[in-house]
Amino acid sequence: MAVYVYGHKNPDTDSVCAAIAVADLKSKLGVEAKPAMQGELNPESKFVLEKFGVDAPEFIDSAKGKQLILVDHSDLAQSLDDLKEGEILGIIDHHKLGDVTTPNPLECWIWPVGCTCTVIKSMYDFFGVEIPKNIAGIMLCAILSDTVIFKSATCTDKDKEAAEALAKIAGVDDLQALGMEMFKVKSAVEGTPIRDLLFRDYKDFDMSGNKVGIGQLEVVDLSILDPVKDDLYEEMKKVKEEKGAHSIFLMLTDIMKEGTELLVVSDDASVVEKAFGKAVEGRSVWLDGVMSRKKQVVPNFEKAFAG
Amino acid sequence: MAVYVYGHKNPDTDSVCAAIAVADLKSKLGVEAKPAMQGELNPESKFVLEKFGVDAPEFIDSAKGKQLILVDHSDLAQSLDDLKEGEILGIIDHHKLGDVTTPNPLECWIWPVGCTCTVIKSMYDFFGVEIPKNIAGIMLCAILSDTVIFKSATCTDKDKEAAEALAKIAGVDDLQALGMEMFKVKSAVEGTPIRDLLFRDYKDFDMSGNKVGIGQLEVVDLSILDPVKDDLYEEMKKVKEEKGAHSIFLMLTDIMKEGTELLVVSDDASVVEKAFGKAVEGRSVWLDGVMSRKKQVVPNFEKAFAG
Repeated sequence: MAVYVYGHKNPDTDSVCAAIAVADLKSKLGVEAKPAMQGELNPESKFVLEKFGVDAPEFIDSAKGKQLILVDHSDLAQSLDDLKEGEILGIIDHHKLGDVTTPNPLECWIWPVGCTCTVIKSMYDFFGVEIPKNIAGIMLCAILSDTVIFKSATCTDKDKEAAEALAKIAGVDDLQALGMEMFKVKSAVEGTPIRDLLFRDYKDFDMSGNKVGIGQLEVVDLSILDPVKDDLYEEMKKVKEEKGAHSIFLMLTDIMKEGTELLVVSDDASVVEKAFGKAVEGRSVWLDGVMSRKKQVVPNFEKAFAG
Repeated sequence: MAVYVYGHKNPDTDSVCAAIAVADLKSKLGVEAKPAMQGELNPESKFVLEKFGVDAPEFIDSAKGKQLILVDHSDLAQSLDDLKEGEILGIIDHHKLGDVTTPNPLECWIWPVGCTCTVIKSMYDFFGVEIPKNIAGIMLCAILSDTVIFKSATCTDKDKEAAEALAKIAGVDDLQALGMEMFKVKSAVEGTPIRDLLFRDYKDFDMSGNKVGIGQLEVVDLSILDPVKDDLYEEMKKVKEEKGAHSIFLMLTDIMKEGTELLVVSDDASVVEKAFGKAVEGRSVWLDGVMSRKKQVVPNFEKAFAG
């Protein structure tokens, strides 16, 4: 029976590429393993897999009877809904420790770095397994994506070192150019249904008993989003209603200006001021230097909701 | 500010030695770190530290304002009571994943092996840090203790490999002899109050609504316990009365014969036959090959009480 390796809901490039890389590594260590994902490829991930000629993971929506390795998440809300029906063999991640628990001992590699694929690069090294050229390429892209080409507050020296080593294996000379190519794909909004855009990189959290949704769109220039901002805001209201959420936040992140316009739909918008010391004006607030949901947004909101 | 590295409540040799080793490793990686523990050294741990000339960790009972690394546990019930007042930087463990969560990304090394110190041996190797001779000695002892000199059902090839490598560094030639020396210390019962002996390694369980207590004493020869067996039995009756328990079981485990004499005080001793297919004769039953409470006793009783 194959072990399924999969990332979080609304898979991003790291979740997809990490699943592929871990399944490759485990297979070479003698464990039959298959990459999987809980949703469709986003445009960036599609571009990355096509560029390096790697097949997409298979879709899964149930843990029942499966052995599983989780990548890029350890929160129940981001995992398969019936996770308890499966057996978790391991977790490879770079986030805070979530509420997943197990009845049996397992294998966890969780490091405070910018990208799951940075951890996986070290795992390949640790086990003395060679990284295939095409998998090195997609792992590199995952790091460029998660660290916003090394600009994010979450980026560490380990991410840079891993990216450089992977670039050599993949035969990539210009990391910056590859990164911009990806982010231009990511920035494209034309022709994307509004709900898909809102959910492109969206996560639900439980913060002190409140349901909180936080999405993020990273673009090379915020003006790209001007034509869709009104529609996004209306869609956020609908999603809040449907989910019975306390708040829905959408980070519109300008990777060149290195800051985020936070769109806010909330039962109590004062949590934003509590979290960032800056009040919402109208429907949003500009947060200078804020680019990372994980490091700069989630912890601040968690404190604000707890207080 | 130093980072405190500490193991679970009622510290055993692995919790103590893992805290010391991780604090050493972290210090050499440039992080000021101190080993700590939540209770007093047990006789075995005391012997191990004295044998290799290593200082005992300092006692801590509060997480308040501290940065922390947890070793050998990830359950809130086994950690500092006010854990939420501190900041968890990492977890190094070999158990199932417990209910500890964090607001921030952290460093987890959790592997399905027999001992935390086996994981730490790999961490030293990973970071290219040399293990000091005396710390290799106590890490070796932790592995010998947790795996009952490689006999436990939890022991893996990784534990054996780590122990052999550590023995070389520590200058230990005869692992078996060192293990026996430790277990003789652990076996000593003279001068210990009967209740302390019964509670030395004791846990309460809820099995299908029944309160069940299971203790364990591991000795190198059951005859060591002959002088205290009557008193232990009387004490078990008292404890059953006081706790209003359905059953109190005490595993007298002979690590050389590789089996357990199970002392039984129960409202219905037939659960023992249901659990192990062997009836109690008088006040106890011999269970050949049974050495692990976690893996061989608790699951059987849980099924017997459920059926």
